[in-house]
Amino acid sequence: MSGGTPTPGTRERIIRSTAELFRHRGYNATGMKQIVTEANAPFGSLYHFFPGGKEQLGAEVIRTSGALYMELFAGIAAQAPDVPCAVADFFDGAAQTLLETDFADACPIATVALEVASTSEPLRIATADVFASWIDGAAALLASAGIEAERSRALAFSMLCLLEGAFIFSRAARSVEPLEHARDAALALILAAMAPAQRS
Amino acid sequence: MSGGTPTPGTRERIIRSTAELFRHRGYNATGMKQIVTEANAPFGSLYHFFPGGKEQLGAEVIRTSGALYMELFAGIAAQAPDVPCAVADFFDGAAQTLLETDFADACPIATVALEVASTSEPLRIATADVFASWIDGAAALLASAGIEAERSRALAFSMLCLLEGAFIFSRAARSVEPLEHARDAALALILAAMAPAQRS
Repeated sequence: MSGGTPTPGTRERIIRSTAELFRHRGYNATGMKQIVTEANAPFGSLYHFFPGGKEQLGAEVIRTSGALYMELFAGIAAQAPDVPCAVADFFDGAAQTLLETDFADACPIATVALEVASTSEPLRIATADVFASWIDGAAALLASAGIEAERSRALAFSMLCLLEGAFIFSRAARSVEPLEHARDAALALILAAMAPAQRS
Repeated sequence: MSGGTPTPGTRERIIRSTAELFRHRGYNATGMKQIVTEANAPFGSLYHFFPGGKEQLGAEVIRTSGALYMELFAGIAAQAPDVPCAVADFFDGAAQTLLETDFADACPIATVALEVASTSEPLRIATADVFASWIDGAAALLASAGIEAERSRALAFSMLCLLEGAFIFSRAARSVEPLEHARDAALALILAAMAPAQRS
């Protein structure tokens, strides 16, 4: 038990550092040595906490990051006066984060999701589970604005597709213009869906 | 000039094989040895044609794939009776391709775009240039339906964000449901924008 015994918090630091590396460079370019360096953790602690290696760590980071992002969305929604404001605030917050991080911090799992979709079933399933939870969360929020369930689910997909697609274009162009158009489109779709609910 | 002299067509095979590997697994998981194996090309031909190595090859593949995808879109648009049909056909064709390729073949450059956005300026710029050409092409198509220029540009971003985002969700979930919702949202946005043009 000498030398490399992991200290409390090591596991959390490994997950946090891996999540940041995934956001910036994806799964395949993130190396185990880089993770322990960034996490200030002994190399042995990686396999101590994640005996399944990088794939096990990756799956846990995907699920943890996905849950944190969902909390962020719920927190913003709880502060907003209504659903359209909540959606606008979320897109605007994402644009602000992109600007503050030199266009590095966008979706915590999109890069990994595309990398692993055809190469790792455990990781693909982890991304699919996270996305499904986001769709459910967004659909519930939209339903709370009086939009019927099936339409809320379709809108949740559209809203999240707009957000994820905009992250690709905004990071590539180093511009928040795509995110601004995506936000406006999401709001237009939501307001159109709310109109009959409000009239009834 | 003995032995490894590249045969005619070798360069094209290298580009085609690399493009397919990029679609399936992205930039970082695509190895030089794998490329020459898939292209049935001598290893030396890679550096013969691409003295700048993987980054130079990557940039060329991004630009070539981007131009081919643009041609595909233009070809579908030329066959369709009107702009909404062209857009619907493009989304439906993408869904069909996903189903036929076991959810592997989606956007030719999205995975690479996310991987390189914060790690390689030459590759990021190549993806940004391709995306800009797609936005211009989509905006011109929408303008041809009578939608004014600024709104056509905003709509082009929304339509392509919906498509790219849907590819992420569809590949992760192995389902074309996200693409179907994204198509419906794109059509709703386009029809709403066309309405005043048609009334004038």
